[in-house]
Amino acid sequence: MPKSKTPRFSPRGSTESIEAGLAFQPKFDADGLIPAIVTDAATGEVLMFAWMNADALALTIETGIGHFWSRSRRSLWKKGEESGNVLTVVELRTDCDQDVVWLRVSVGGDGLACHTKRRSCFYRSVPLAATPHETLHLAWSKDRPKG
Amino acid sequence: MPKSKTPRFSPRGSTESIEAGLAFQPKFDADGLIPAIVTDAATGEVLMFAWMNADALALTIETGIGHFWSRSRRSLWKKGEESGNVLTVVELRTDCDQDVVWLRVSVGGDGLACHTKRRSCFYRSVPLAATPHETLHLAWSKDRPKG
Repeated sequence: MPKSKTPRFSPRGSTESIEAGLAFQPKFDADGLIPAIVTDAATGEVLMFAWMNADALALTIETGIGHFWSRSRRSLWKKGEESGNVLTVVELRTDCDQDVVWLRVSVGGDGLACHTKRRSCFYRSVPLAATPHETLHLAWSKDRPKG
Repeated sequence: MPKSKTPRFSPRGSTESIEAGLAFQPKFDADGLIPAIVTDAATGEVLMFAWMNADALALTIETGIGHFWSRSRRSLWKKGEESGNVLTVVELRTDCDQDVVWLRVSVGGDGLACHTKRRSCFYRSVPLAATPHETLHLAWSKDRPKG
């Protein structure tokens, strides 16, 4: 998708304006992307992490439905368009630097946000107090779905 | 900080191994970094978002204390080393693609994870059902600290 000819968002201002002001001036990286954290609005669980370009962010704001940029497919992506697991955004936040967004969502369909058919993409834990020079073994997190 | 001479983590395997296996094989991007989402282990609130290089991830695993890579200072960064807001990791998770980590933490000191002296970096909400072609005004999120 070609870049929009007209900038959709405010240009970046001073650090004071970015951190303490109320003008939304999101920062996109060198690839034109901003990280998006997605959590379950009811439980606080992190469901997934994805990227947005300006078009995806604009569509998310306009529609209240989570849109992203697929880096592998190089295309705009409405989450759940095929699976039915559409993300209805309950609240959208940005951080101090305005270079990350956080979507608090309700997941549609069967409620499985991960393409592996799990509720969350974060279904494995990394051991702590371990020596990472050796092979580390993950553990299934407590909310691993049965079967 | 120079890159470690010996790889600290397993090389990447097949998609099946990455998504459904228990070998930790984190993916670092072209800059040698992996995104790290930090939430409050008690409340589920997203506190901050930062980046880790392999050394920061290894130190976090070894010590159970959140370490990151500062892209602006180009240095390893133990969160809270100066402020006292050290992050004790209750649980560390990775996602299906093993290219993101999620730290569920307890914040030390006065409990303020953001450098702006707020509990969370995500203290402003972006309006929804708005037209992003115009100037968008953020709102203080409900948990804005008093004063």
